[in-house]
Amino acid sequence: LPKVVKRRVHALKRLQVQCANIEAKFYEEVHELERKYAALYHPLFDKRREIVTGTVEPTDEECEWTSDKEEEEELAEEVKEKASIEDTKKEEAKPEEDPKGIPEFWLTIFKRVDMLSDLLQEHDEPILKHLKDIQVKFSEPGQPMSFTLEFHFEPNGYFNNAVLTKMYKMKSEPDASEPFSFEGPEIIDCEGCQIDWHKGKDVTVKTIKKKQKHKGRGTVRTVTKQVPNDSFFNFFNPLKVAPDGEVKDEDYEFTLATDFEIGHFFRERIIPRAVLYFTGEALEDDESFDEEELEEGDEEEQDEGDEDDEDEGDVDTNNFAHKEQPQPAECKQQ
Amino acid sequence: LPKVVKRRVHALKRLQVQCANIEAKFYEEVHELERKYAALYHPLFDKRREIVTGTVEPTDEECEWTSDKEEEEELAEEVKEKASIEDTKKEEAKPEEDPKGIPEFWLTIFKRVDMLSDLLQEHDEPILKHLKDIQVKFSEPGQPMSFTLEFHFEPNGYFNNAVLTKMYKMKSEPDASEPFSFEGPEIIDCEGCQIDWHKGKDVTVKTIKKKQKHKGRGTVRTVTKQVPNDSFFNFFNPLKVAPDGEVKDEDYEFTLATDFEIGHFFRERIIPRAVLYFTGEALEDDESFDEEELEEGDEEEQDEGDEDDEDEGDVDTNNFAHKEQPQPAECKQQ
Repeated sequence: LPKVVKRRVHALKRLQVQCANIEAKFYEEVHELERKYAALYHPLFDKRREIVTGTVEPTDEECEWTSDKEEEEELAEEVKEKASIEDTKKEEAKPEEDPKGIPEFWLTIFKRVDMLSDLLQEHDEPILKHLKDIQVKFSEPGQPMSFTLEFHFEPNGYFNNAVLTKMYKMKSEPDASEPFSFEGPEIIDCEGCQIDWHKGKDVTVKTIKKKQKHKGRGTVRTVTKQVPNDSFFNFFNPLKVAPDGEVKDEDYEFTLATDFEIGHFFRERIIPRAVLYFTGEALEDDESFDEEELEEGDEEEQDEGDEDDEDEGDVDTNNFAHKEQPQPAECKQQ
Repeated sequence: LPKVVKRRVHALKRLQVQCANIEAKFYEEVHELERKYAALYHPLFDKRREIVTGTVEPTDEECEWTSDKEEEEELAEEVKEKASIEDTKKEEAKPEEDPKGIPEFWLTIFKRVDMLSDLLQEHDEPILKHLKDIQVKFSEPGQPMSFTLEFHFEPNGYFNNAVLTKMYKMKSEPDASEPFSFEGPEIIDCEGCQIDWHKGKDVTVKTIKKKQKHKGRGTVRTVTKQVPNDSFFNFFNPLKVAPDGEVKDEDYEFTLATDFEIGHFFRERIIPRAVLYFTGEALEDDESFDEEELEEGDEEEQDEGDEDDEDEGDVDTNNFAHKEQPQPAECKQQ
């Protein structure tokens, strides 16, 4: 480009930085809106918790629900029931089966969502049966932007905390060194909480026994040692974000990015739509989402195979922050 | 599930429908916010247009811009310049080269962005050299939600319109039959405009000549016929959305979905960040975005290869509507 033109392009870039600063304010206002709407969702989520835990029994009116598929299933069931009176009698023979609320509601979600089941260990399951609710709380206006996930437990034999928390700190301003990479608020750090485990119940550590031989005397003694153990509850003891300039390996970055993704997923998908993850309806959507991405990626790959691996360090995905979908409604109804 | 539990799950689903209705109101407020911010961006975009068209020359202060890379390039250039005084003299010999504004600013963007260059034909290029600005206008409060892309042209030898428009109608409410698929506003229809072409200048049609032989007399005459021609300007004469129930083939749906994606891309990426598409900086981001998606998709494919092609008709991608990114800032700085 001729120098005079280059000069003008620089002027446009300066304008673009100003745009990024305005955009940051826009996202702050969206955050405020989210706080406002959190209050509107609150009574509905309270009601959900009460139904899940069995504190209230919904009225018949509150339970009215029909979908073609379910009706068909119900019809098929009725036919089946009539055919095998024997089975019906067996069922009646178990009157003790009167489940409270929706048993294992949250545990079922943990098992169904890949991102969470990857963390879930067998020893976590009996603990998560006591999970009553997951809530999100937003930072107050004027405070640094953040959100806190609250995991509410009923009294249980594992720890004393009634609530386990995980706080995600966010940043909603363009980076001075990279103003154009700004795409809305980002998670930049997180903080867990101390779990007050009952003695011997901490599933995040395991005790191993080691035999030690005394060098001089030749006597053998057994020592016990506590080592970290895989568990979902390590979610509350996350990695610390390393200060700038410190050496960070790939594992570290992957673990941190995964943790941030999980926090984001709780906030944006699981908490607002828990019942759909419980029934599996939301999972189908997510899966077809991934498939679609794969197809697009494949095409991209064919067109521009040369540029492979150029930007490996850049985890700048899902940049459709605060954007509408471009898909026609028609396609969704197929 | 036992019937009593199923009943409670239905109650949760009813609550979930209420959540979707609240969410719809949230997105309406976000739309209002976008209108509000459009007014804040307006003076900056006006300034951009004036610099691009050469109406104003930015001051030195307005053009201050340094980045390490550019400084290096400039240094290298200086060395080069000193070495070949000959070339410099040649350049000086062309004093007529005093480009106005930033020549071919928008055309360059059209050429660089795959989604647009796919539509671009050679005969479109001289016309797009006259494109002065692209703007987005939002629907007024109380009106059905929509946005209009305005393509502003300087007087040219091709058509009389000063502005070509494309309006995208949106829907921001859950579908009664599918309330859980609601993920924020969607484009549901679009409307182009009539282009008042100068005689013989309409690039969206081509004239073909056909020889016809008279059956009885055996005389031959030449008839001319106008047939559709590939051109970006067909963007202003889009397909109509077929009413529900009408047969739609795959081609139709693909064309419609592509048109909606392009409209969305103009609104959300090109208009707000035009200079970054001109310089190519935004393109790099988009490419690494696609690569990342591919990697995720691959993993998904390996885990659940069985479920292939199950939801082919579902174009429900990019569902991160109004969500923040879960990526740690650290990863971006690598």
